[in-house]
Amino acid sequence: MKHLLTAALGRDEAIALLDSAEDMHEVQSHQLKKLPALRGRTVVNAFFENSTRTRSSFEIAGKWLSADVINVSGSSSSVSKGESLRDTVLTLAAMGVDGIVIRHGDSGAAALTADWLAASHPQVRVLNAGDGAHEHPTQALLDAFALRRRIHGTASRGKGLDGVRIAIVGDIAHSRVARSNALLLPALGAEVTLVAPPTLLPTGVETWNTQVTTDLDAAIAQQPDAVMMLRVQLERQQGAFVPSVGDYILGWSLTDARHRALPESTVLMHPGPLNRGLEISSKAAEAMQSAVLEQVTSGVSVRMAALYALVAGEDQA
Amino acid sequence: MKHLLTAALGRDEAIALLDSAEDMHEVQSHQLKKLPALRGRTVVNAFFENSTRTRSSFEIAGKWLSADVINVSGSSSSVSKGESLRDTVLTLAAMGVDGIVIRHGDSGAAALTADWLAASHPQVRVLNAGDGAHEHPTQALLDAFALRRRIHGTASRGKGLDGVRIAIVGDIAHSRVARSNALLLPALGAEVTLVAPPTLLPTGVETWNTQVTTDLDAAIAQQPDAVMMLRVQLERQQGAFVPSVGDYILGWSLTDARHRALPESTVLMHPGPLNRGLEISSKAAEAMQSAVLEQVTSGVSVRMAALYALVAGEDQA
Amino acid sequence: MKHLLTAALGRDEAIALLDSAEDMHEVQSHQLKKLPALRGRTVVNAFFENSTRTRSSFEIAGKWLSADVINVSGSSSSVSKGESLRDTVLTLAAMGVDGIVIRHGDSGAAALTADWLAASHPQVRVLNAGDGAHEHPTQALLDAFALRRRIHGTASRGKGLDGVRIAIVGDIAHSRVARSNALLLPALGAEVTLVAPPTLLPTGVETWNTQVTTDLDAAIAQQPDAVMMLRVQLERQQGAFVPSVGDYILGWSLTDARHRALPESTVLMHPGPLNRGLEISSKAAEAMQSAVLEQVTSGVSVRMAALYALVAGEDQA
Repeated sequence: MKHLLTAALGRDEAIALLDSAEDMHEVQSHQLKKLPALRGRTVVNAFFENSTRTRSSFEIAGKWLSADVINVSGSSSSVSKGESLRDTVLTLAAMGVDGIVIRHGDSGAAALTADWLAASHPQVRVLNAGDGAHEHPTQALLDAFALRRRIHGTASRGKGLDGVRIAIVGDIAHSRVARSNALLLPALGAEVTLVAPPTLLPTGVETWNTQVTTDLDAAIAQQPDAVMMLRVQLERQQGAFVPSVGDYILGWSLTDARHRALPESTVLMHPGPLNRGLEISSKAAEAMQSAVLEQVTSGVSVRMAALYALVAGEDQA
Repeated sequence: MKHLLTAALGRDEAIALLDSAEDMHEVQSHQLKKLPALRGRTVVNAFFENSTRTRSSFEIAGKWLSADVINVSGSSSSVSKGESLRDTVLTLAAMGVDGIVIRHGDSGAAALTADWLAASHPQVRVLNAGDGAHEHPTQALLDAFALRRRIHGTASRGKGLDGVRIAIVGDIAHSRVARSNALLLPALGAEVTLVAPPTLLPTGVETWNTQVTTDLDAAIAQQPDAVMMLRVQLERQQGAFVPSVGDYILGWSLTDARHRALPESTVLMHPGPLNRGLEISSKAAEAMQSAVLEQVTSGVSVRMAALYALVAGEDQA
Repeated sequence: MKHLLTAALGRDEAIALLDSAEDMHEVQSHQLKKLPALRGRTVVNAFFENSTRTRSSFEIAGKWLSADVINVSGSSSSVSKGESLRDTVLTLAAMGVDGIVIRHGDSGAAALTADWLAASHPQVRVLNAGDGAHEHPTQALLDAFALRRRIHGTASRGKGLDGVRIAIVGDIAHSRVARSNALLLPALGAEVTLVAPPTLLPTGVETWNTQVTTDLDAAIAQQPDAVMMLRVQLERQQGAFVPSVGDYILGWSLTDARHRALPESTVLMHPGPLNRGLEISSKAAEAMQSAVLEQVTSGVSVRMAALYALVAGEDQA
């Protein structure tokens, strides 16, 4: 793997990454967390959108692998001087960094970054930490990792998610988390059902390798193995949010009643941070708290694995 | 000690911390400042209020102990997305950090943080770097450390501040520095007098283990061993500042005349940054410059000691 | 060298720094970039003006030398509390840092910083990372380094830029890059011609050790060995930009026609980021892309050399 731009990975490739994340997870559980694998390598977190979670997770992952980690943020960057993203990326590469973790509000920014680097700096690796409404591959990998552990426990290595039935619920159209999960989970053998109001289903969703429904109660009646509630991102809505917030809660929120209708064995997931009382009731949020935190923990494991796979280089592999 | 939430420490506990800070102070004076004590440990500076001084001091303290240090600030954090402090804290803990240094505008934020972590992440340690108008325990510890050194010199180890008479002057009601010092210094045997305009004395101050007066000139006439001038924080005033700035200067500023009335031996202290011409005249500020910088230096020593005591863990203690 | 405040270096001093940067450049080209030279030393990047490029470059330089690097920025600093620059600088020094890299909007800020430290913290070294319209010495050093490599290749060590003819084009009056280059390049033996509209020439330029002209086409007709295009910084203009942007492009932009009029061997330089279509055409910008990136790479080498020279201390030299 040269870059990690998308969650559209092959099954073997994905399982290899998840297995490597299992190794990292063991390190993480030690009291002294530090591997020398990326010593002498430099990773830049180039975050043009704010995100405590993802930036901290990547920063911790890099530091635990002994990389030098540099943070560049949109607000402190020369982007405010009108510098183009391409100039910024090429400049960082010219400084000699080994990996660029990029988060950007525009869909396709990560792939463009990889393209720009191909000619002049082919050795620099790009990790997509979220690009617009497009993809967020490490989020999908951490979801798969946490879910695999929930289902297979310590016997997870080498396994996929064959036959696991997962409902992803919310604003599918604008969610990079949904898009990346809809690519990765089926590749691992899972059966994914997307649940959204008709207005929040993406164009062309019928060609995706998933089931689609607008009826959350029907999806819950199927007793899925996992339910992933997406975050309602009102701040990303352009124009009015349709349906109204009230209708959204009625139809697509994980209310107490819907929560009770699910089997206890169903794994509840959420990329965080949770909007309590919006996509999820406070009580359901409390019930799924520990699973959500497992996702966070998995995030560091998966990002360590991704950085290691991409940045460690042949001499370390 | 599990967390450092308050300066309400026992005498022995406080002296042990100050003695450990003496060890750190020696390291600090070396040309190569680096101890391996926290290698493999991760400390997050979670600063929801800006502060160059305190954040840099904790960051340097952590790095000199070889910890991995992650900075999270209010502006760059997902708090702007409406994420609750509790979610942020639990997320950081779930990533696997060992210590959270928290600064927050709300009184009680540090204690709440410790409470939230108790159930799910009991191993994570919390250090209060200032919470609202409540407490700032490392500031009190550094004040005690710097003062002990001024008084006992290199023979400070094991000693308290018995019989040392200290006047703390300014807006006691809104000052977390005053509150923490009013807890710590008497525990070390000092005799503390709080000096403030009547409007800036906290409710219930008569129950504190201190003397109280509104007359700065009378307090100065007592020839105290140390005078700690608080910073006037006009930016924190809710509504009008009472008394007026003019009356404040007349009554409670360390003017040239009051400065001259103090014995030369009196230690002048200030948590910084100084408002010259407001709580202190420019000339007095200049005279106390070196003492203020000693406080800053002491801050790193004390924070190294606190991080070591809390985060190093049993295997290192 | 005690501080690096100005590019007004002696020839031998400048060549020694450039030669040291050659050593650093070799390290930089290795896959594992890390020297132990500054282990146990602490460098603060105190940036009171935003700059991704320069801050990242200094941060990478410091980390590759194994220093602890602390970032302090204007927005996150207590400067917003009205703390004076002097208080901030003395506070950082009192914490025990070994070097302060300072970028500030006011001309003279770096020299003032060195003055303030002289009495109380003479061991702390100051590196000017850009002060107002005054100087930016590491930029001039990296320009000299990149140019020397272009001309002398791997045989650069020990050499100056004797007889090399360089045109510096743009807003000379407000450019710290121009000022530092106009000091350094002639000291290395280069023949510098400043090219600017009459309104953008600094007062007293006739006393500088350079040629001056307002005619870019004439300067190009001289077939200079290098052309350094300055960035038009409209955001720094006080009042109206004179000449108009249209007239500026007509007279002083590196248009396609002027680009074609230059010999292929002419080295094209720019401190970045480029304003395409303003001081340079898009096509010319593309043609000089690789040279601009060489300047960026050189920046890390030169800053490593400067940090090493100043902060490593006698025991390491």
